[in-house]
Amino acid sequence: MASTAEDQAQQNCFYQEWMNLQEEDLQELLQAQNPKHPNNICHDSLSQLAKKNIQHFQDYVARRAQLARADVLAFFAPTWCTSLENSLLWIAGCRPSIFIRLIYALCGAEFESRLSEFLRGVKTGRLSELSADQLRQVDELHGKTIMEEEKLTSRLASLQEEVADQPLAVMAKEASGIGESSQGSDQALDCHAQAMASVLEEADQLRLSTLKEVMGILTPLQGVEFLGMSRKLHLCIHEWGKRRDHMHGRN
Amino acid sequence: MASTAEDQAQQNCFYQEWMNLQEEDLQELLQAQNPKHPNNICHDSLSQLAKKNIQHFQDYVARRAQLARADVLAFFAPTWCTSLENSLLWIAGCRPSIFIRLIYALCGAEFESRLSEFLRGVKTGRLSELSADQLRQVDELHGKTIMEEEKLTSRLASLQEEVADQPLAVMAKEASGIGESSQGSDQALDCHAQAMASVLEEADQLRLSTLKEVMGILTPLQGVEFLGMSRKLHLCIHEWGKRRDHMHGRN
Repeated sequence: MASTAEDQAQQNCFYQEWMNLQEEDLQELLQAQNPKHPNNICHDSLSQLAKKNIQHFQDYVARRAQLARADVLAFFAPTWCTSLENSLLWIAGCRPSIFIRLIYALCGAEFESRLSEFLRGVKTGRLSELSADQLRQVDELHGKTIMEEEKLTSRLASLQEEVADQPLAVMAKEASGIGESSQGSDQALDCHAQAMASVLEEADQLRLSTLKEVMGILTPLQGVEFLGMSRKLHLCIHEWGKRRDHMHGRN
Repeated sequence: MASTAEDQAQQNCFYQEWMNLQEEDLQELLQAQNPKHPNNICHDSLSQLAKKNIQHFQDYVARRAQLARADVLAFFAPTWCTSLENSLLWIAGCRPSIFIRLIYALCGAEFESRLSEFLRGVKTGRLSELSADQLRQVDELHGKTIMEEEKLTSRLASLQEEVADQPLAVMAKEASGIGESSQGSDQALDCHAQAMASVLEEADQLRLSTLKEVMGILTPLQGVEFLGMSRKLHLCIHEWGKRRDHMHGRN
């Protein structure tokens, strides 16, 4: 179960690779939805691009599950993330419902900025033009996702509370010194870590399945637009967080 | 609003002082409930000791609120805590319901270990001897605390989701580069930080009020026993966490 300083470096490196991949993906997503000539938008290649991006997230989730099995605690408040990112964490990642919130925000903002085009009947096929049926599906997905989030939130709460229950509370009570190591406490903490790793995996699966369901509702062009924006927002939060950490004397 | 590296050092120092104070408090709490002669247990002085301990927590909460107003993000995944402690965080601290879970755990464990004394009718006045009325009050407090926790959990969820809404999502969308600083994004992040600081303060108030209500239910001896155990558990988790971080190559 134990990892070493080498594994710690591997976790940092894995995160950096993921952020770099997101930057590359973002450039590709932006180019694909804004070709030099609008007629060059090809729905098949947009679909392929969206699939490739989802696959990248799926690979990330699979690798993270492996690393978390060796050292799950590192992922609950990662030292490689900024304080801003860590303050937004829900079970070691973003809330899946944030994907849906982002659709609503982009849809509303684009609608406002393109109001005159709408009034002239110009169609762009973008996120701002979600059909009534798509909106209904997004609403349904929102409700379902929040319910799933609540279930996992409760699971995490139970695990967190278990630390104040048997066996750990009793071991703490009976220890003659503070925090003495014992086979019993080590085993109980290993067991706790395994349960935390399971919750993390389930949360990652919920993030992934929500993303896939979002893509199933959107058209290929809307999907690529959405993926681009979610990548860009993530990268922006990371940069904003870095600047704020620097401002507050953290590296 | 901005703090500096000096404030960062102040936060670390403040935490270290708090941990040291808890260690001192623990020694006093343990001595008071286990005097050399059992007849030396004085309910008035136990009450005073419990009040002093609650006051220490109240002072800690007040000072933390001041520091959080300058740099709230530091408290959501503190660099001065271990990964184990950070994985157990709920709004920058412990779950208030954990206090009640600890009463149940101690009550059950003591009951088991003193079963023969109970059968012989020996009374000790300890946590294991909670009356039916006390248990009913603890149950009621448990239900109420969980409801309050859920309200604050929802508040935090809304704040976390707001990052994917206007104005930040739109600023990220419209930024030509990744994470460019702008007056708008700085203001929006300041505003977000203030809201996070308010939630942190409310969570701290809930922790404090739950602790006070627990003390209102317990007898002075039970209260001192409970406070001692909650201090000891916290200190043990910190030490266990340090050892696990070390094991995984973290300092």
